[in-house]
Amino acid sequence: MDEITGKWYLETVFPDLAIMLRVQEVLYSGRTKYQAIEVVESEVFGRSLVLDGKTQSTEKDEHIYHESLVHPAMLMHPNPRTVFIGGGGEGGTLREALAHRSVERVTMLDLDEEVVDLCRHYLPQHHQGSFDDPRLELLHQDARAYLEECDQTFDVMIMDLVDPLEGGTAYLLYTEEYYRIAKSKLNPGGVLVTQSGPSGLLALEECFTTIHNTLKGVFKHAVPWQVHVPAFHIPWGFNLATDAQLEAPSDIDAAASQRLNKALRFYDTETHAAMFNLPRYMRESIAEENRVNRDDSPVFMV
Amino acid sequence: MDEITGKWYLETVFPDLAIMLRVQEVLYSGRTKYQAIEVVESEVFGRSLVLDGKTQSTEKDEHIYHESLVHPAMLMHPNPRTVFIGGGGEGGTLREALAHRSVERVTMLDLDEEVVDLCRHYLPQHHQGSFDDPRLELLHQDARAYLEECDQTFDVMIMDLVDPLEGGTAYLLYTEEYYRIAKSKLNPGGVLVTQSGPSGLLALEECFTTIHNTLKGVFKHAVPWQVHVPAFHIPWGFNLATDAQLEAPSDIDAAASQRLNKALRFYDTETHAAMFNLPRYMRESIAEENRVNRDDSPVFMV
Amino acid sequence: MDEITGKWYLETVFPDLAIMLRVQEVLYSGRTKYQAIEVVESEVFGRSLVLDGKTQSTEKDEHIYHESLVHPAMLMHPNPRTVFIGGGGEGGTLREALAHRSVERVTMLDLDEEVVDLCRHYLPQHHQGSFDDPRLELLHQDARAYLEECDQTFDVMIMDLVDPLEGGTAYLLYTEEYYRIAKSKLNPGGVLVTQSGPSGLLALEECFTTIHNTLKGVFKHAVPWQVHVPAFHIPWGFNLATDAQLEAPSDIDAAASQRLNKALRFYDTETHAAMFNLPRYMRESIAEENRVNRDDSPVFMV
Amino acid sequence: MDEITGKWYLETVFPDLAIMLRVQEVLYSGRTKYQAIEVVESEVFGRSLVLDGKTQSTEKDEHIYHESLVHPAMLMHPNPRTVFIGGGGEGGTLREALAHRSVERVTMLDLDEEVVDLCRHYLPQHHQGSFDDPRLELLHQDARAYLEECDQTFDVMIMDLVDPLEGGTAYLLYTEEYYRIAKSKLNPGGVLVTQSGPSGLLALEECFTTIHNTLKGVFKHAVPWQVHVPAFHIPWGFNLATDAQLEAPSDIDAAASQRLNKALRFYDTETHAAMFNLPRYMRESIAEENRVNRDDSPVFMV
Repeated sequence: MDEITGKWYLETVFPDLAIMLRVQEVLYSGRTKYQAIEVVESEVFGRSLVLDGKTQSTEKDEHIYHESLVHPAMLMHPNPRTVFIGGGGEGGTLREALAHRSVERVTMLDLDEEVVDLCRHYLPQHHQGSFDDPRLELLHQDARAYLEECDQTFDVMIMDLVDPLEGGTAYLLYTEEYYRIAKSKLNPGGVLVTQSGPSGLLALEECFTTIHNTLKGVFKHAVPWQVHVPAFHIPWGFNLATDAQLEAPSDIDAAASQRLNKALRFYDTETHAAMFNLPRYMRESIAEENRVNRDDSPVFMV
Repeated sequence: MDEITGKWYLETVFPDLAIMLRVQEVLYSGRTKYQAIEVVESEVFGRSLVLDGKTQSTEKDEHIYHESLVHPAMLMHPNPRTVFIGGGGEGGTLREALAHRSVERVTMLDLDEEVVDLCRHYLPQHHQGSFDDPRLELLHQDARAYLEECDQTFDVMIMDLVDPLEGGTAYLLYTEEYYRIAKSKLNPGGVLVTQSGPSGLLALEECFTTIHNTLKGVFKHAVPWQVHVPAFHIPWGFNLATDAQLEAPSDIDAAASQRLNKALRFYDTETHAAMFNLPRYMRESIAEENRVNRDDSPVFMV
Repeated sequence: MDEITGKWYLETVFPDLAIMLRVQEVLYSGRTKYQAIEVVESEVFGRSLVLDGKTQSTEKDEHIYHESLVHPAMLMHPNPRTVFIGGGGEGGTLREALAHRSVERVTMLDLDEEVVDLCRHYLPQHHQGSFDDPRLELLHQDARAYLEECDQTFDVMIMDLVDPLEGGTAYLLYTEEYYRIAKSKLNPGGVLVTQSGPSGLLALEECFTTIHNTLKGVFKHAVPWQVHVPAFHIPWGFNLATDAQLEAPSDIDAAASQRLNKALRFYDTETHAAMFNLPRYMRESIAEENRVNRDDSPVFMV
Repeated sequence: MDEITGKWYLETVFPDLAIMLRVQEVLYSGRTKYQAIEVVESEVFGRSLVLDGKTQSTEKDEHIYHESLVHPAMLMHPNPRTVFIGGGGEGGTLREALAHRSVERVTMLDLDEEVVDLCRHYLPQHHQGSFDDPRLELLHQDARAYLEECDQTFDVMIMDLVDPLEGGTAYLLYTEEYYRIAKSKLNPGGVLVTQSGPSGLLALEECFTTIHNTLKGVFKHAVPWQVHVPAFHIPWGFNLATDAQLEAPSDIDAAASQRLNKALRFYDTETHAAMFNLPRYMRESIAEENRVNRDDSPVFMV
């Protein structure tokens, strides 16, 4: 059996460029009511969750993604007690949020119950039992519809969604209208953070920059950062937004060890500096961006 | 999800040329004591059995391979009552042999019990229950060692093996020494037939031609033929050998409908003519071949 | 440098199945007025001509295709003196037609002058100088428009076209209307032959069967055959049609050596038998086909 | 022509993971005395230089690589007048070094004259005419042998080499013995900088960490950093080493605009912070590394 023969997962990263990943097993492959879902296992990444052909997270590097999404916002907030999670079916975001001792309640909305059930079964290293935490309220309905109706408010809201693809399930959770609704459910001093898609040089960065620009129009402050998640192949962007005057702790290591009930694997003071100092081209792209995602004119990821 | 993204099975057909097959499911993937085995399902081929990275047979076209292997020899023999099958784990060769009303006993040796068990489970369209036929004696030991010891003899011996790869399980079942043993267990008027590997223009034809030449040195008559099995991508060769003066029925359709308990799907009079009239380049390659597969100097498929 | 790294040509053969061919050089890549054209060189096939992403012919096996297209019709005709070629830009069909000593004039129409010029430059092993033969009249205009206007007639008409793809340049040369025009330019006893696309089990055979059925409605006799051309990966079909009562010579070898000024490499008596005895499934598909290609309702190759 | 069909460059990034890049043209493909060289053009990356199957730099992002390699060392040095470049055949490193107004002489050693000539011809956007600068002395001999013999000394030495692959041309330019030779040719206050291979989470980071550890044993100070170069798919590492007490300018933008004769595209104050703050896992890998590259026991990149 030579080096080519065998089972591969091919994934287009952007037009004219695809990744070939040799897989050991396809643990699950099917369609839920909302999307195609695959769980594949590879020597490179361990178990990967793939939704509609896009790798969402993998066993070997999901901690980079999830720590980068959750902890900057959680540690910037002085005392997060109530957390809202939109999406996040693998349970990694939930796991990281629950690690904060201050957290009393997490309300997590993932539209797709089947995805959550499959993740609970196939991705134990992702959730590590966090779905059983009594502080969790897990609901399977549209996050936006829920927020419009709910009378709860939150200290931190974490949007861990699939990318804003045309025809996808999530693009209405990246718009100005959505962010206004979300903001109305934030407690004073609250923070919203969202995964924001690729932030690289060559393609697709419009997702990252328009989300930033949209947040900036709704909140007083919006802060972008990026990180290299190996399974995504291109740098990945995040944005947080708040009306409060918040700063990251100058000593993140100290803050983390004081406020979390576990040691972090990726995020620390020096890593924070690497993440929040964007390369010049991203700062320039952000500065030049003037589009705003609106319900009737969203900027889809191509 | 675009046209590239997704699960693929890649298979090198010969150096510098590989096939990309989009798969719907990987039904099984593992290693037995002897070889790697995968059962993949695709829109193109249905369920495929893959051993050590080589597609062995598929739901959509296995009837072409199995009818081409079994019936020329069975119909050339005037009254086959006892059949020996070497290999053939999917059960397709067995199914075709048992369709001959004259058959009273089939002794099938497939070294790899796990492969047979997995085929019984995953490939019901291949065997169609033939493993339950009371005429079958199924053994899991080396065909050559068995024949050396056994005191049974056979009218037709069908070798349905993996290719003679270096380091593989089967190359000692393609040698002059093996054919002498097998011949000693053939009844008078008996026929031996073997799958013989690729028979195409561009590569690998040495397998086909050396098997033919080896058989010709052991038996009075050796007859080559080939057929296009879509899943193999290159024409596939077979050889039968006998000391008897045998002829194919001039009306294969009539012979088949008289002697089989089912209708054939592929093999008939006109198809026989297509198979047994080799293209010129194959006749030339056969004429030029002077190597003989011997235990200590086999011609491996590269 | 491992077994994957390097330059490859990927070609979808049919949905969900593609070929990966390692290439040594891309000798030419561009667009003519009518189509994309590439000349790639590989260890497997030597130089290949690719039009609109479909391999048309390769150095290593073009003789199989061109001999199979040209000589059955030419040898069936008792004395072909005038030949019409539609398409055939590589010059291989021309080369084979000119090898018949009886031929006094070949009128070749290939719409795409750039393709012909590039083939003359890059594919010398294909044409072998045949474009310089004084018996050739080479024109670059639409074959159908030309035939409608011309006052010449022909003994043999050879259609060596790209497949009838929607939006392509050729599908109006596969229709009933076209065949009526062509027939009107055939001399008494004349023969028309056309390449007819894939003729395999699994896909695309509608091209072959509808061309056959269309010819059968226009001519008294239509004869199908197929051959395995390695570069096409699936069996390839041809059809000839005539109003005359013609038979292939019973001894093709003798006829060829008498009537041609060179030895053939592929086509001979036994190969003829392999080609004209179709496998059962193709005979069944042909028998079941009732569609006719018409200008306003062609059956496109998918 | 569908999304798969066409010309691709496949490149294994690490075991079980490869990149598929659709190419528009293969501009050059051949072998020099020392290595295989290809220049391919793609929509994604523009023109790419590939040596022995490894992408070295591309038109769209070479400025990231070359600015990251050259300017940290050049700006850390207070007044670099003489520069040594080992490798760097594309001319991008040369271009960046010559942009420093203080530079009076650059001695560039690239073993492979053919590579340099091909780059001059095919990659004008890389070198931008810098090979014609009168300050350049360009030699085609082994950098190590040259340094052992030469009586010149340098303020900055820049090693822009292919990775230390077994059997490759460069691994003896990454060893302790080599660094001692190089150090002996550095002026007081001088700096040596070297590209250092992948610096990612999942594989191959041993190259980066052993180079760092080896430099640390030879020089008083060694400083690692990394950057995301899109064409490399995984983060890329660099190291500089010096015996002097040097600091990066606190305002890199001011220093660059004062000392360079052109504006930089990538490197600036904030980007510097992103590059020199390594993610935690890299700091941990560096801290744990205790191997030293020696001539007789180098750590090859796998």
